[in-house]
Amino acid sequence: MTDDALLIPPVPDLTDTALAADLQHRIDNKTKPLGSLGRLEALGLRIGSILGSHAPVLEQPQMLVCAGDHGLAARGTSAFPSDVTWQMVENFLSGGAAVSVLARQHGIGLTVVDCGMRRELPARPGLVLARVGPGTRDALEGPAMNRTECAQAIAQGRAVVRGLPGNALLLGEMGIGNTSAASLLLARLAGLDVADVTGAGTGLDADGVQRKMGILRDVLARHAEAVLPLQALAAFGGFEIATLVGAVIEAALQRRVIVVDGFIASSAVMVAAALEPNVLQRCVFAHRSGERGHALMLTHLRAEPLLDLGLRLGEGSGAALAWPLLQSACAILREMASFESAGVSRGEVPEAARP
Amino acid sequence: MTDDALLIPPVPDLTDTALAADLQHRIDNKTKPLGSLGRLEALGLRIGSILGSHAPVLEQPQMLVCAGDHGLAARGTSAFPSDVTWQMVENFLSGGAAVSVLARQHGIGLTVVDCGMRRELPARPGLVLARVGPGTRDALEGPAMNRTECAQAIAQGRAVVRGLPGNALLLGEMGIGNTSAASLLLARLAGLDVADVTGAGTGLDADGVQRKMGILRDVLARHAEAVLPLQALAAFGGFEIATLVGAVIEAALQRRVIVVDGFIASSAVMVAAALEPNVLQRCVFAHRSGERGHALMLTHLRAEPLLDLGLRLGEGSGAALAWPLLQSACAILREMASFESAGVSRGEVPEAARP
Repeated sequence: MTDDALLIPPVPDLTDTALAADLQHRIDNKTKPLGSLGRLEALGLRIGSILGSHAPVLEQPQMLVCAGDHGLAARGTSAFPSDVTWQMVENFLSGGAAVSVLARQHGIGLTVVDCGMRRELPARPGLVLARVGPGTRDALEGPAMNRTECAQAIAQGRAVVRGLPGNALLLGEMGIGNTSAASLLLARLAGLDVADVTGAGTGLDADGVQRKMGILRDVLARHAEAVLPLQALAAFGGFEIATLVGAVIEAALQRRVIVVDGFIASSAVMVAAALEPNVLQRCVFAHRSGERGHALMLTHLRAEPLLDLGLRLGEGSGAALAWPLLQSACAILREMASFESAGVSRGEVPEAARP
Repeated sequence: MTDDALLIPPVPDLTDTALAADLQHRIDNKTKPLGSLGRLEALGLRIGSILGSHAPVLEQPQMLVCAGDHGLAARGTSAFPSDVTWQMVENFLSGGAAVSVLARQHGIGLTVVDCGMRRELPARPGLVLARVGPGTRDALEGPAMNRTECAQAIAQGRAVVRGLPGNALLLGEMGIGNTSAASLLLARLAGLDVADVTGAGTGLDADGVQRKMGILRDVLARHAEAVLPLQALAAFGGFEIATLVGAVIEAALQRRVIVVDGFIASSAVMVAAALEPNVLQRCVFAHRSGERGHALMLTHLRAEPLLDLGLRLGEGSGAALAWPLLQSACAILREMASFESAGVSRGEVPEAARP
């Protein structure tokens, strides 16, 4: 399989020097000491650049939660059984999960995609059926998915995003066993050791993590030839990660603001960025997860996340928690007065005090 | 002056072991891996404890921005002239400042208090006149305020909070020169060296910071006897910090959630906590500021802030930015399903995978 076999269109460079200079000028002229809004200023600059506006408005934000099951999970790589994937999807849809609560709090639309859970759920509003299969295959026996399945998942991710309104996409996921897939992708694409990228996931104890590491080492050895991004994605899974890769590519092509959640969502961005580095220009990384490996993944992506709250839930919960900061960055660009308009004196030390 | 001369009532211990256990049990039974919402879980526990509820509702949050001028500023301790204090108050009231924009975004009521600016502004809605004087006196010549003025400011801070609705108070401030006062309070009350607690404030250059340090050293030496919290507060100022001390005490007595902004607001909490340590039980620290000294102040207060975005604006802007996290913590307590109610399986490694 070659990486261009899936016909992923090139994601253009967003760099617009004139717009960036205009945005920076506006930020610097707001009534505040230079740079005193810290990282919020860079955030406003980024969102303005993505949306091509010096007064950006975030419209109809959409949380996309991609769900899928993992063949490898039967080997005990997770503290929870695979049934929890569909059970949590039911919980997302009935409004009782963390991501449901947080999306509701912030007026973020919530769409759940069944990318291939073991159990098929009946269709209903809010649930998109884009099943590649009843969970991936055991990655220790062969590739988690074949190239056709991988291409299908990516294409479906692109199609789902095309069907969503708005100019901002928040990435979420659910899949018992998917920290294993993300760890495998990180180890392979960043050239890191399993011991550095393997964490407790939903709550393995120390022995469980050791066992998980052993399994992941074996999977990596089994797929030593899977070195290109899409080869690695097919080898390690999962369907929800591949669907998110497509979603990221499509959102980037449409110049939507992409709000990246934790370890799993970031792994999809990592694969997408390995294919099309310019997708990173459209990304805002919401938080640094408590899951071991995420800090290294963020470093690999040269990403500086907004929050660091020890979250390790996934679902898109961290992306939803960071969302108001994006709105604040835009509101500051749009609504704050300038020194001139507010009649505020510029900074200068009184003459008498000059040395 | 003795510290009890101001008749600050004792702030009772909030500890309620049964409520805390109930809150922790509810959090642990939400549909998520144990502890996976990280610091948001501790935040929910804290707010529930303050409000005495296992399903806390934050109501009518109030941003209190206390403004005052500083005699020491004439010596060039700030990069901005003192006139910027009243000019920014005008900006707060007309809606163009960062704190105005952010308070509006989140539906937070905004009250500005003139605690003693050099220029007196006409009364209008949103502006409370509680002037102790036309700015503090030069702390290098004598105490910034006398004991009567200090007591008046604290009493006025208490009175202002009594007049505000709601169960949450966000602390903000404005006062050219007030990082000097906060640095002096930190140096004296935490026993730290001026070099470790003095920063650039609104934007001094390296030479300016050195000059500021020299002035602060002289002020500390001039008031070597001011070792008790209220002695230090009177010696170093300012009126806005003393008013905030009163606001913190009153809000704590009323069991309001106190959301602490940056270096100046934290300095008021530090003084209040030195008088009544239990006020810290009611505090949520919004962020770690980029202003040198704030990290040390937070450590001194054993506080772990929510955000770390390199903010150094003051006004209450960081408190407003963190506000949605408090709402999220409450929404999660109130609205998330339990494992039982959602029919989600509990974590356990499949039998076959057990060692």
